[in-house]
Amino acid sequence: MSKEHVVRNYIAGQWRTAEAQGFLDVENPATGEVIARTPRSTTTEVDRAVAAARQAFPAWAHMSVARRVSWLFRWREILMKNEEKISRILVEEMGKSLSDARAEMKRVYQNLETACAAPMLQQGSKLVDCAGDIDGEEMHEPIGVFAAITPFNFPAMAPFWFIPYALATGNTLVVKPSERVPLTLEAITEFLHELELPPGVYNVLNGDKDASIALVNHPDVKGVSFVGKTDTCRIIASRCAELGKRCQAMGSAKNHLVVMPDYKQIDELIRNMSTSCYGCAGQRCMASSVIVAIGDAMYERISATFVADSRKYRVDNPLNPDVLEESLVIGPVISAQSQAFIHSMIEIGVREGATLALDGRGIRVPGCEKGHFIGPTVFTNVRPGMRIHQTELFGPVVCIMKAGSLDEAINIINNHPYSNACSIYTQNGYEARKFKLNVETGMVGINVGIPAPVPFLPFGGMKSSMLCDIKMQSRSAFQFYTHNKVIVERYWPTE
Amino acid sequence: MSKEHVVRNYIAGQWRTAEAQGFLDVENPATGEVIARTPRSTTTEVDRAVAAARQAFPAWAHMSVARRVSWLFRWREILMKNEEKISRILVEEMGKSLSDARAEMKRVYQNLETACAAPMLQQGSKLVDCAGDIDGEEMHEPIGVFAAITPFNFPAMAPFWFIPYALATGNTLVVKPSERVPLTLEAITEFLHELELPPGVYNVLNGDKDASIALVNHPDVKGVSFVGKTDTCRIIASRCAELGKRCQAMGSAKNHLVVMPDYKQIDELIRNMSTSCYGCAGQRCMASSVIVAIGDAMYERISATFVADSRKYRVDNPLNPDVLEESLVIGPVISAQSQAFIHSMIEIGVREGATLALDGRGIRVPGCEKGHFIGPTVFTNVRPGMRIHQTELFGPVVCIMKAGSLDEAINIINNHPYSNACSIYTQNGYEARKFKLNVETGMVGINVGIPAPVPFLPFGGMKSSMLCDIKMQSRSAFQFYTHNKVIVERYWPTE
Amino acid sequence: MSKEHVVRNYIAGQWRTAEAQGFLDVENPATGEVIARTPRSTTTEVDRAVAAARQAFPAWAHMSVARRVSWLFRWREILMKNEEKISRILVEEMGKSLSDARAEMKRVYQNLETACAAPMLQQGSKLVDCAGDIDGEEMHEPIGVFAAITPFNFPAMAPFWFIPYALATGNTLVVKPSERVPLTLEAITEFLHELELPPGVYNVLNGDKDASIALVNHPDVKGVSFVGKTDTCRIIASRCAELGKRCQAMGSAKNHLVVMPDYKQIDELIRNMSTSCYGCAGQRCMASSVIVAIGDAMYERISATFVADSRKYRVDNPLNPDVLEESLVIGPVISAQSQAFIHSMIEIGVREGATLALDGRGIRVPGCEKGHFIGPTVFTNVRPGMRIHQTELFGPVVCIMKAGSLDEAINIINNHPYSNACSIYTQNGYEARKFKLNVETGMVGINVGIPAPVPFLPFGGMKSSMLCDIKMQSRSAFQFYTHNKVIVERYWPTE
Amino acid sequence: MSKEHVVRNYIAGQWRTAEAQGFLDVENPATGEVIARTPRSTTTEVDRAVAAARQAFPAWAHMSVARRVSWLFRWREILMKNEEKISRILVEEMGKSLSDARAEMKRVYQNLETACAAPMLQQGSKLVDCAGDIDGEEMHEPIGVFAAITPFNFPAMAPFWFIPYALATGNTLVVKPSERVPLTLEAITEFLHELELPPGVYNVLNGDKDASIALVNHPDVKGVSFVGKTDTCRIIASRCAELGKRCQAMGSAKNHLVVMPDYKQIDELIRNMSTSCYGCAGQRCMASSVIVAIGDAMYERISATFVADSRKYRVDNPLNPDVLEESLVIGPVISAQSQAFIHSMIEIGVREGATLALDGRGIRVPGCEKGHFIGPTVFTNVRPGMRIHQTELFGPVVCIMKAGSLDEAINIINNHPYSNACSIYTQNGYEARKFKLNVETGMVGINVGIPAPVPFLPFGGMKSSMLCDIKMQSRSAFQFYTHNKVIVERYWPTE
Repeated sequence: MSKEHVVRNYIAGQWRTAEAQGFLDVENPATGEVIARTPRSTTTEVDRAVAAARQAFPAWAHMSVARRVSWLFRWREILMKNEEKISRILVEEMGKSLSDARAEMKRVYQNLETACAAPMLQQGSKLVDCAGDIDGEEMHEPIGVFAAITPFNFPAMAPFWFIPYALATGNTLVVKPSERVPLTLEAITEFLHELELPPGVYNVLNGDKDASIALVNHPDVKGVSFVGKTDTCRIIASRCAELGKRCQAMGSAKNHLVVMPDYKQIDELIRNMSTSCYGCAGQRCMASSVIVAIGDAMYERISATFVADSRKYRVDNPLNPDVLEESLVIGPVISAQSQAFIHSMIEIGVREGATLALDGRGIRVPGCEKGHFIGPTVFTNVRPGMRIHQTELFGPVVCIMKAGSLDEAINIINNHPYSNACSIYTQNGYEARKFKLNVETGMVGINVGIPAPVPFLPFGGMKSSMLCDIKMQSRSAFQFYTHNKVIVERYWPTE
Repeated sequence: MSKEHVVRNYIAGQWRTAEAQGFLDVENPATGEVIARTPRSTTTEVDRAVAAARQAFPAWAHMSVARRVSWLFRWREILMKNEEKISRILVEEMGKSLSDARAEMKRVYQNLETACAAPMLQQGSKLVDCAGDIDGEEMHEPIGVFAAITPFNFPAMAPFWFIPYALATGNTLVVKPSERVPLTLEAITEFLHELELPPGVYNVLNGDKDASIALVNHPDVKGVSFVGKTDTCRIIASRCAELGKRCQAMGSAKNHLVVMPDYKQIDELIRNMSTSCYGCAGQRCMASSVIVAIGDAMYERISATFVADSRKYRVDNPLNPDVLEESLVIGPVISAQSQAFIHSMIEIGVREGATLALDGRGIRVPGCEKGHFIGPTVFTNVRPGMRIHQTELFGPVVCIMKAGSLDEAINIINNHPYSNACSIYTQNGYEARKFKLNVETGMVGINVGIPAPVPFLPFGGMKSSMLCDIKMQSRSAFQFYTHNKVIVERYWPTE
Repeated sequence: MSKEHVVRNYIAGQWRTAEAQGFLDVENPATGEVIARTPRSTTTEVDRAVAAARQAFPAWAHMSVARRVSWLFRWREILMKNEEKISRILVEEMGKSLSDARAEMKRVYQNLETACAAPMLQQGSKLVDCAGDIDGEEMHEPIGVFAAITPFNFPAMAPFWFIPYALATGNTLVVKPSERVPLTLEAITEFLHELELPPGVYNVLNGDKDASIALVNHPDVKGVSFVGKTDTCRIIASRCAELGKRCQAMGSAKNHLVVMPDYKQIDELIRNMSTSCYGCAGQRCMASSVIVAIGDAMYERISATFVADSRKYRVDNPLNPDVLEESLVIGPVISAQSQAFIHSMIEIGVREGATLALDGRGIRVPGCEKGHFIGPTVFTNVRPGMRIHQTELFGPVVCIMKAGSLDEAINIINNHPYSNACSIYTQNGYEARKFKLNVETGMVGINVGIPAPVPFLPFGGMKSSMLCDIKMQSRSAFQFYTHNKVIVERYWPTE
Repeated sequence: MSKEHVVRNYIAGQWRTAEAQGFLDVENPATGEVIARTPRSTTTEVDRAVAAARQAFPAWAHMSVARRVSWLFRWREILMKNEEKISRILVEEMGKSLSDARAEMKRVYQNLETACAAPMLQQGSKLVDCAGDIDGEEMHEPIGVFAAITPFNFPAMAPFWFIPYALATGNTLVVKPSERVPLTLEAITEFLHELELPPGVYNVLNGDKDASIALVNHPDVKGVSFVGKTDTCRIIASRCAELGKRCQAMGSAKNHLVVMPDYKQIDELIRNMSTSCYGCAGQRCMASSVIVAIGDAMYERISATFVADSRKYRVDNPLNPDVLEESLVIGPVISAQSQAFIHSMIEIGVREGATLALDGRGIRVPGCEKGHFIGPTVFTNVRPGMRIHQTELFGPVVCIMKAGSLDEAINIINNHPYSNACSIYTQNGYEARKFKLNVETGMVGINVGIPAPVPFLPFGGMKSSMLCDIKMQSRSAFQFYTHNKVIVERYWPTE
């Protein structure tokens, strides 16, 4: 890639140079190098993409669902064959480790696989004789053109929370990837292009906030999926509601890990937690960033051991050949702006009185002086209500807290502004059940640091971490992308 | 009933006199007589109801679902035994015929019956070994306090689109019935009171728009169900989205009946259509108010026959003993205001050039001179785009139109601003299928004038007739009232 | 009741005196008193019952499912009101404690409740455009006349594993209760009789093995449900398969309870186990009769404590007013024959070298000298392969064994000829999961002595404890009682 | 292929020469040429295959379902790439037309696709708090080793009614293909072999009836699927029931096509019917072989037109290059024995008094003098009860009958000994509904000559055409291949 490369839009089955009102740099966050430019597509360009999707809708909607998914089967196959190529592009523009990129691709395939089940999962139901000689039927119909506006941290997986299901169910789609990481989806789309999907069924539109706003407001867009910050979610969800559109809006997170006082397998525990905290440099909505130890003894032990383990991570350019196949690698955060924000929050944490047990600032990665690196950072003595506890940082910064009991830990979680996910470490069936029934988060782990559901189960938070009614993945995705029309039918005897 | 009767609130298992900022008259629309007064509950009173519901939530949510539905079984039984008593109150305050009131009660029972299936329908799913030795689980958890704001036209059924499901799934509820028809729910609640439901699980709050606004904005209300006009739906849906609340908002309707040119059973057809148009004096979201005949011959025949049949309906006080057991009875519309609005629209229809083939204005019902009656009114020569075609009238006013083909009729329906329901009359399987797949309404009838789904199927419109993602009744109601939390669980070997 | 009472058949909506080829005594097993006589219905009488069911089938099958279940709602209600009356009859003829009888009635209601969900659970599915313009539909149709042949140990619950589901789904039914306990179902049927179910939909036929054989072989009986011994199951299942009939055949059991070495709550544990072993005098297919303690220490502790707890049970006539409301009561076994068999097996156990730690033989209950009592009996030092371990005793006789590890305990269970149910006592999530995934029984308990599923879940064993493919209760019952007919449908364009 | 080729067994991931007690010729039925030899595997060889499957079971059963289906995805892909090669082998050994062989392969892929949905479809259910603090769970566990014994007429599709589902759900399998057509599965298995499925999960055993009997009786085979004649079904089903094994046994058919008197699209109708009757030379369980015309006029018209259309079919070697891409081709029946049987039945038809309107005997195909050809054969004036009506012929022989009404036609169908499938031709929604609700066959077509459900719906007949409870394909296949174990779970508070 190079700064000469202008990312293309994919509209109506054709690659095209966007009609743009300007361009944004795509950076390799490990080197600061500009590797491409994202066009800021104009409203006219948005109209073009939506029009293509709208035109493609009727024929696609009325095609047999088994035929529709045949393209998904083939897309899955071709992406698997090109996993390595795509993963490298992903690493280059996003900065996560190669093993994280490969793991992300697995979720792409699994979302495709789940959508391939559409001939089973989109079936409606029928009640013969729902009343005297009258039959009732519930159909799951596609709705029309959808838009998906996806974030920078999962350049491959995030679009695939939407594409496979939207297409399988008979809708058509415009995807707007993050302007920071447009290259992965461009590469993925190249492979789809070979498969001769009917033009307009799937479209990629590059751009920034203006394009997103235009998509949300476009009268022919019948539903919007968005993953980003909670504040943006509120605006989009509210606007969609007013316009009568379907909406998925997945927001911010701050995920807690609770350790019971008698937990035995400390080595597995620590590594399980640090993997959750430092993977993708902490830039995952499922990353954990708060550890709550129950009792003094466990708190002391965790604090010491976690810091020691954190030191084992290597901060580096993930494409450095030395670390390419390593797992304990932390790459850069996405941008200088993000790095500066995290630095300022570390500053605030210190001022709030938390103990900065490990300071990741000021890391130097040789040859990557312009990269946006932050090393593993650990605060101990964190108390609920501190800003470092209340704020989503999206970096490799961990807060360690103490609680007197499981109930107290549950309260900390339930009183937090974000409610995406959390986990407990315990071998005790009673405590595990109590935790899972009482925490108010959308996803819950038992001895699992990253309780991200496989696509065969729904994905989404609760309360302010999900500003909508229907989750992503699994049966939920089928609900989101279909309208359940009801038919009430009777025939009079002919005579 | 009498004007001295002030409708009571039901909060925390107790009847109480509302803290009110004023009162509104409840009228018998057939006589204009004031039969009770609805308190305009204050914000403090709203807080009280919500607080009761909030307090009751945790214990109710963690009770076995089988135990929760045991109250629904008993409520169903006691309501069935008191059907006649409740139906008469319903007729007195709302004005529909007694047979319509009884039919409405049937839907109350069926919604209760569907919710009684909660031990089967609220089950979650579990995927053992969703990844190596990790299990995934999807739970359907209750969410908290819900509010239901219900309309005047179904004083019994509309609250029961919500109450049974909210309670069965473990949520607690505040119902605000229409200030025009609060007596039916008051009567129904009396019977629940006998059953010793845990206090606060179910609450009734009387009031007007102010109370509705307070409920929508209350931070402890986690979801809102509303049935009313599309404009109000937009406001509520948008506000709920911003606040991160679940929302159901069911709006306006204008339902079309399409008659194919070769339809044979004209007698059944006409009566099936007139029942749809005139039942409840046309004040049903499922009422039809537009007939589209395909072809000149059928248009002429329908126009003549429908007007003739319309003349057979008797406009009267539904509690007049002479008509009590009659079915071809049209009672009053709900208010003088509504009557005036409909009169003005008839005026407009005439000015727009439609033919007023039957004029229901100026009806006099002896002894009911202050009743708000309108007789069957039929416009022919109606064209798409006329205001009488575009506007929801909520009265016994029918538009008859002509279309050249089934495709044209489908276009008329799909271009209409409202998209609740529609029906076709045909014996031909091909045409029936084409119609049901291509019309863009939430409910579709085949030879059924009122394609209102039984509660074993979902209920709701499409596009601007439903400003939300999840329908009422059936599995949809279970989706609306539960959050699908996901658990990801693993245990390490012990030794 | 008295020996003059001849139990009546209920055929075509009428009580009738059976055409009988002889009579069998119905005894109160606590007193030995004859309380009624069961007619040995002739083949002609069987034909009469089946003919009534066959005649009733078409109209019942084509009735709206919502209407069919309306009778079940009413039956549930009337039985709940008469619980005490029915329970006393049940105790009198069967001998279990009154609290056990009442608990049994709860299962009756819950099976009715589950069947009441039929309008949701019997819905078929529909796949629009399963291939170009062709729709596919799966209907769940009733099949015809079913027979249910039920055992003595649950005179009320066992028939209700079948009746509610058979009727809800649109089949008609002939129930043949155990000739030893026909009075409970006679009483229950009295209440149904009041409800005016259409004649022939539900029929009760009294008789012995001859009547069962005639039912199994009758060409108009389309399916048979049987609960009894494994040997009989094999014969019935094989005969039904040959004749192309549906068959459920639930057989013998010997259920193990496994106690992990570090289990803490010993008091709850022991009572949980003894309740499982001694309830209904051990005459439950879900009763446990083998305790497997892991490790020497736990084995010693359990052996001592369990015997001590066993001594607290009182052996008595359950209708003795002194024990009527007691829970630690053991009533008689069903017959002198059964008592003699159990005595002989205790004899064998002693000879095989097991330690008879508590001997329940020779119990005298004052005033009940002809009752068939056996007191709590405990063998320790039992080894796999002993006949007292391999044989289903159906009495209050417990074997205590030792195993060196959880794996060894699982092997003991998996190598046993019967595979109905088993349980583990552990607080450890890893061990619980290992146990539930690896034991080969149809039902598994975690810290639950009697893992009998509520009717919202399926009920049935595995391997030689269930000689059929489809379980009882829940969705399984709906599968058993319906045929999934598939429709493939297309319409050509008309013009 | 050549007569030197001895078909190999595939056991434990290896091709091996069968231990055989003799050999059977595999013939090209169009030429009579011997193209291979099927070994008659011994009981020892059967034991070997079952042992391999048994050994592979535990690891396969406990593998993540998503991982299991990854092989099915790949198998589907590789088979699609080799469709032409496999189809030619299929044509050579079975004799159907190349287009029929390709269509058969489509069903192979679709069955694989449906099984690929296993991560969604094998999920169990969970009821939290099914009773106070007790949770209930239903798991869908694999069972063990299954056997599939498949018929000659669908050498590719029939094994795939079983393989994908058995494997996806975690069972292991031994397939015994028809000894007449073993080469197709041998070729298909070659492609699987490349994929490195764990050894023993999937095994192919060649042989005759002796091998089938050994499989059915083998104690380690937990379930058997069989497709063949009704008489054999009875024996297998009965034996399996006695042994406590799962069983699917799909039997004989005689499918009726009913034409309503006012049916208009006669050209489409006739071709739709003749395709059903003559495809695969009538050797399909879904082939129609009886046409029932309602009314004299339609009967006369159908008789004349159908015979005329039948003459358009060309009887030939399907591998003759001239007809390779033709659709109106009839190849040979499977064997000289089958040909002789059909000839004898034609003889009988004539003797019974039916009119032999078209005689397909005595066809000569140049260059294929030893082929087993029968041309299109049509009987008119057939009456119910004639042996040509009652008997399954499995050849291109059609009976045309007359009925006075739809009711009479339904009676003819419902009184026939076989109840697999039937169809109606009508445009009338009332008649279509009446037909589908009232005919007693497992599959029903509306204007579809071959109402064979796609794999997203169940497949199977009724009454004597299906001697088991659970159908093939779709959710039914998942039911057949899994045991629904129930877990009842509770944890006591820890201290």
